[in-house]
Amino acid sequence: MSEHEFYMNLAINNAKAMKGQTDPNPLVGAVIINHNRIVGVGAHLKAGEPHAEIHALRMAGEQARGGTIYVTLEPCSHHGRTGPCAEAIVKAGIKKVIVATLDPNPIVAGNGINILKNANIEVIVGICEEESRKMNEVFNKFILKKQPFITLKSATTLDGKISTATWDSKWITSEEARKDVHQLRHENVGILVGVHTVIKDDPELTTRIENGRNPIRIILDSTLRIPLDSKVVTDQKADTWIFTSNQYKEEAKKKLEQQGIKVFVTSGSNRVDLHDTLTILGEHSVSSVLIEGGGEVNASFLAQQLIDKLVLYVAPKLIGGKQSPGFLGGTGFEKMADAIDLEHLDIQKIGKDFKFTGYPVYKNLVTHS
Amino acid sequence: MSEHEFYMNLAINNAKAMKGQTDPNPLVGAVIINHNRIVGVGAHLKAGEPHAEIHALRMAGEQARGGTIYVTLEPCSHHGRTGPCAEAIVKAGIKKVIVATLDPNPIVAGNGINILKNANIEVIVGICEEESRKMNEVFNKFILKKQPFITLKSATTLDGKISTATWDSKWITSEEARKDVHQLRHENVGILVGVHTVIKDDPELTTRIENGRNPIRIILDSTLRIPLDSKVVTDQKADTWIFTSNQYKEEAKKKLEQQGIKVFVTSGSNRVDLHDTLTILGEHSVSSVLIEGGGEVNASFLAQQLIDKLVLYVAPKLIGGKQSPGFLGGTGFEKMADAIDLEHLDIQKIGKDFKFTGYPVYKNLVTHS
Repeated sequence: MSEHEFYMNLAINNAKAMKGQTDPNPLVGAVIINHNRIVGVGAHLKAGEPHAEIHALRMAGEQARGGTIYVTLEPCSHHGRTGPCAEAIVKAGIKKVIVATLDPNPIVAGNGINILKNANIEVIVGICEEESRKMNEVFNKFILKKQPFITLKSATTLDGKISTATWDSKWITSEEARKDVHQLRHENVGILVGVHTVIKDDPELTTRIENGRNPIRIILDSTLRIPLDSKVVTDQKADTWIFTSNQYKEEAKKKLEQQGIKVFVTSGSNRVDLHDTLTILGEHSVSSVLIEGGGEVNASFLAQQLIDKLVLYVAPKLIGGKQSPGFLGGTGFEKMADAIDLEHLDIQKIGKDFKFTGYPVYKNLVTHS
Repeated sequence: MSEHEFYMNLAINNAKAMKGQTDPNPLVGAVIINHNRIVGVGAHLKAGEPHAEIHALRMAGEQARGGTIYVTLEPCSHHGRTGPCAEAIVKAGIKKVIVATLDPNPIVAGNGINILKNANIEVIVGICEEESRKMNEVFNKFILKKQPFITLKSATTLDGKISTATWDSKWITSEEARKDVHQLRHENVGILVGVHTVIKDDPELTTRIENGRNPIRIILDSTLRIPLDSKVVTDQKADTWIFTSNQYKEEAKKKLEQQGIKVFVTSGSNRVDLHDTLTILGEHSVSSVLIEGGGEVNASFLAQQLIDKLVLYVAPKLIGGKQSPGFLGGTGFEKMADAIDLEHLDIQKIGKDFKFTGYPVYKNLVTHS
């Protein structure tokens, strides 16, 4: 590990420690060194409170002068409640700024760096970049696209099946992996399934871990055929939002709304329009959604290049069968060369199972009308 | 690591170094210590030459007396070319014997241990047992069952597909993984596919690495419909053996035999009988077979509980599609609870891909008539 990486890691660790308490702001950490000694550390603790750099500068005091600051995100250039951090860094007499990632926020996006460079401060960008970006992956998308960050979660056997040919799927993975899924639910603002899953399994879609936060239950239902006695409609355990197409029945909509269910009509004529869905969710401040759909819902999102992250639990077992479904339905690609690559693929053992985490790389960007 | 494990690991490392040069004998290593010093090491080098214990005892000479010997396999009790090792250990005055695994060979199977115990030598069995057994997994099965050790190899996308719905499969995995497959071919005496694969892909089924040994090409073909101009019939690069059913055509058999192809008729009336196939292969000293079949051949072997080991390369990509085939066809299990578990599942990164290695655990042993 280089010296730069050593200090940036410390900044990242401080930033990560604040996970869950900075919303809607990103996680940010900072470290200041001078004459090879750490003279200040800081992290952003809470929206409305000082940014990480300010905390670190305050701790360093006069020792900041002539020093180097490591910060996980580009110092801001805009006047928020604590003023532009880039200017505070200049004023403090810092000589060198090491940044992990640029700020994707369009109101910063390089302006912070420019302020520093104009003040003749040496700037290095890109130390521990991937880790810093990953730490704020939800924020990074939401700030740019105003749509939620989408994680597709599934669980398969080692031969790629989510159930037997007769739709038996209990249980593919171990208790440890299933518990990990509840952690994912806890970390996401919304959870999304197709109405077919509601009809077939009548799931609760709640977070069953201690102090778990229940995500908003988002159901795709083009005709509003969801059973009025299904748990997500009746149990009041969390909000339920249903997205439908032009084909919805007014009668059904009224009945659902009477039960406190929100119904959103998208522009889709036969199927729920997924882009509309994500835009509406973004407008309602839903910054992250976990998809736990069946093969068809999963495949639709993937085909429309809407999956940002894949989390796949793979159980060490074989079920076999030509007709046993996999986690991606649809028609799939015709050519192996067109397959979607996953980058930064990480693998972790959870109980007896393996957890793959990766990011789809879409080769041909589709344009959405 | 305990002291026992430390010395046994050394014995295992010496044994493994001889991989490929002890056939048809197993890999065996031995270490002798006395007064906390290693006084002898040995390994079995070649069939017909001394066993590992004898080499180690010779190296130790008089210092073996009162010492402890670590040996990866139970010392033999039968009079081979070098006499029973168990008796040699007794004569040398060894006081303690640490064994990794018992010898599965029915002519030893505990008799070696008995000789030692009858001479009042302390015996401990089971140190580094799993590793020692794995190292000789092929030998262990063949000596007992007189049938080849069967490894099923496949390569899939992360969503479990071996090709697109239009049968395009080039390439799923990276060059590094494909090279690793050739190492597997090199290590196996035979390679087996169904005739469907020959018709569809016309593969060579040879080992394309430096100094690679070509396995015997074993084709399952119930009616002998294999094209006479296919590479495995004409290219002379390795032996080709075809297994057929009662449905074979005498005319086709003659033509194949004229081209130097061996044809074996099994008792199967519609399909090739897999048990007959393995028995015949065993009679011809084929101790290991790599199955690179399509989904149906793979599923048949698995359904008949004939797969000893699974090697699965998983590529970090998604292909999707309900109709895109997985590596196990057939009907599969009806209940998830009946899925075949894989034990000792190991995962290794090869290039961009993941290599899973595991051993199926068959829950309900089928009886074969």
